[in-house]
Amino acid sequence: MAEEVKLFGRWASPFSRRIEVALKRKGVQFEYIEEDLSNKSPALLKYNPVHKKIPVLVHNGKPVAESLVILEYIDETWKHNPILPTDPYEKALARFWARFIDEKFWAIWPAVKRAILSREKEREEAIEETRQHLKTLESGLKERKFVGGESLGFVELAANVIVWLFAAQEVLGLEILTEEKFPTLHEWSQRFVDDAVFKECAPPRERLIAYYKVLYGASTASK
Amino acid sequence: MAEEVKLFGRWASPFSRRIEVALKRKGVQFEYIEEDLSNKSPALLKYNPVHKKIPVLVHNGKPVAESLVILEYIDETWKHNPILPTDPYEKALARFWARFIDEKFWAIWPAVKRAILSREKEREEAIEETRQHLKTLESGLKERKFVGGESLGFVELAANVIVWLFAAQEVLGLEILTEEKFPTLHEWSQRFVDDAVFKECAPPRERLIAYYKVLYGASTASK
Repeated sequence: MAEEVKLFGRWASPFSRRIEVALKRKGVQFEYIEEDLSNKSPALLKYNPVHKKIPVLVHNGKPVAESLVILEYIDETWKHNPILPTDPYEKALARFWARFIDEKFWAIWPAVKRAILSREKEREEAIEETRQHLKTLESGLKERKFVGGESLGFVELAANVIVWLFAAQEVLGLEILTEEKFPTLHEWSQRFVDDAVFKECAPPRERLIAYYKVLYGASTASK
Repeated sequence: MAEEVKLFGRWASPFSRRIEVALKRKGVQFEYIEEDLSNKSPALLKYNPVHKKIPVLVHNGKPVAESLVILEYIDETWKHNPILPTDPYEKALARFWARFIDEKFWAIWPAVKRAILSREKEREEAIEETRQHLKTLESGLKERKFVGGESLGFVELAANVIVWLFAAQEVLGLEILTEEKFPTLHEWSQRFVDDAVFKECAPPRERLIAYYKVLYGASTASK
């Protein structure tokens, strides 16, 4: 049977970009469908009725939602060029850190945005909180807890969000994640910033920066 | 090498009880260490420095944290009596619904507690929100999306929290999850309420009810 693989995504979303990297790495041909999140397609609502969110992978008509769940599905369905380690303990560590990134690092994103647009004290607090989470990641990296060798794995796919953080801090004139403050994390992130497939699946830098300028500028203006 | 398995948990926590069920089902011998969460042990802080939370499984000196990550680790390390389905798609569905339970259902718990102790309108809103999530679970069940056949699997382990909900609604005199309102969900939950291993790993009903009475009573009294 010919494989039919569709990905419902959004250009600016690190979550759907993760899936693109994984599919390309596996050499899986897929049809990409760009969603307008202010006017979601009936297909998206049908395939992800619970969360109504991108990304959704539809494989031979069967939908899978939630980016980390999709990554595991892809890794188990197309087994070459593995994303997760084989050893159960290494696998558990990769899952732990990917969850950490999604829960702590991403959870902080709206707080950072709010803080940017608000008073000095709140801003400092939110930036400090982000730094604390980056520090935890940096420690994990130093203990070589999740660097999956030569190939970029599950944690790196989850951490693709760092590319977005780089763009946001540039637009906002902040120094949150810098080489000086987090040398190990910075060096590690350069590995996937420079990776050909990651690059191909990241939004064009200028477009993302223009988008953030409008986003943050508009919110500030409307205050 | 003799296996050394330790579990750091808390009697009233569904998250650590999940792990107990899984280990017993696999027939893995383990040492259980009850944590006092108001005075966490140096061992817990050492083994889970990132979240400082139970449960933590320590297998031959190596710690694994986060209950769903631990369940997957257990399933991959001791392969008999599987917890997750083998088919990648079935597996993705199980992961999706277990995450749903942790994110939506559990996330609502503090809201319910707050609502109980607050005004009529807020209370009604929080209960309604809980019902919406239960409705989503009920629909998932009806479409037979995650009933893993005869054996109780990953989703049932995640859904053990329903036992706690039954105790809480009894103490609070509420009818949130009843047979009348959610027949499919209620019938499904009876399967693990009645399961011998689940029973063994649930807190004694009277103790949980007494605990909730103090918890909710005390908060109400202090208002």
